[in-house]
Amino acid sequence: MNRLEDYIISIPDFPKKGINFRDVTGILDHGEALRLSIDMLKDVAEEFEFDAVAGVESRGFIFGTPLAYLLGVPFIPVRKAGKLPRKKVKATYQLEYGEAAIEIHEESVYKGMRILLLDDLLATGGTLEAAAGLIEELGGVVTGILSVIELSDLGGRKKLEKYEVRSLVEYAGE
Amino acid sequence: MNRLEDYIISIPDFPKKGINFRDVTGILDHGEALRLSIDMLKDVAEEFEFDAVAGVESRGFIFGTPLAYLLGVPFIPVRKAGKLPRKKVKATYQLEYGEAAIEIHEESVYKGMRILLLDDLLATGGTLEAAAGLIEELGGVVTGILSVIELSDLGGRKKLEKYEVRSLVEYAGE
Repeated sequence: MNRLEDYIISIPDFPKKGINFRDVTGILDHGEALRLSIDMLKDVAEEFEFDAVAGVESRGFIFGTPLAYLLGVPFIPVRKAGKLPRKKVKATYQLEYGEAAIEIHEESVYKGMRILLLDDLLATGGTLEAAAGLIEELGGVVTGILSVIELSDLGGRKKLEKYEVRSLVEYAGE
Repeated sequence: MNRLEDYIISIPDFPKKGINFRDVTGILDHGEALRLSIDMLKDVAEEFEFDAVAGVESRGFIFGTPLAYLLGVPFIPVRKAGKLPRKKVKATYQLEYGEAAIEIHEESVYKGMRILLLDDLLATGGTLEAAAGLIEELGGVVTGILSVIELSDLGGRKKLEKYEVRSLVEYAGE
């Protein structure tokens, strides 16, 4: 096995009937797959100009921090509301049922800072759109959006059409 | 500035009056500090023998995955209950108020697997003790426990006395 998709585990009917869940944690079970995923993200990241990597809690932390480490830039944690202790901005966005809220420390983003935004999964794009909005509210510029997995039938790329979006593995039609 | 503690931000009276919160995310705001923290963890990790790094959600993900990447081993996410999709084991433990539950995928740990367990913070040690217990329940061996920050007056090291514990920055007496 040496393709990243070989390590992504499909779990039928999770979290509910009819959903074919793509489990990115299968990558983490294998040292060589973790290496491959980060090296692939680094290759894609090098197409972009940026001063920091931002990652969405919590699987975005898993893939975002090794990337920031390798590239020698700050890592901006986009956290669920109520977790960050310093002054912050907050965005609320719609989920399929109900809503969610995320926050970023104000001090983490300066005016004109170029940011590569990352999450493990691009589905409807709601979380990444909200995270990009927070970065822009603080004067930052989202120069690119990266995901490990993209579920391309769920319209995320359309919602994020004003950004450059790249994903490592794409699933369509289910 | 070139000591790790220079990047840790103290926030008085957070999350409540009388608590002097040590904010590890100050490290992440600086590319050189993120590098320093991971390189220091790697230096300490190299004193141990292990087949995988386990990190506790979610700040343990931030420091644990770059380490697993650099050392070429799997990363085992210790997640809050209800997040992992595959077959898993669960531990419930006491917090100051109420309780919390964490889980690990059964497939992530094999019998005799040596695991270096990591979190950002060692305080009372309850979370790390519960995480170590889950690893052992699956037949794994916790060969070491690492934290970035240790609040040494809270008794965590005593609770974890059967393990080798290392922390990068220690705060006592407040």
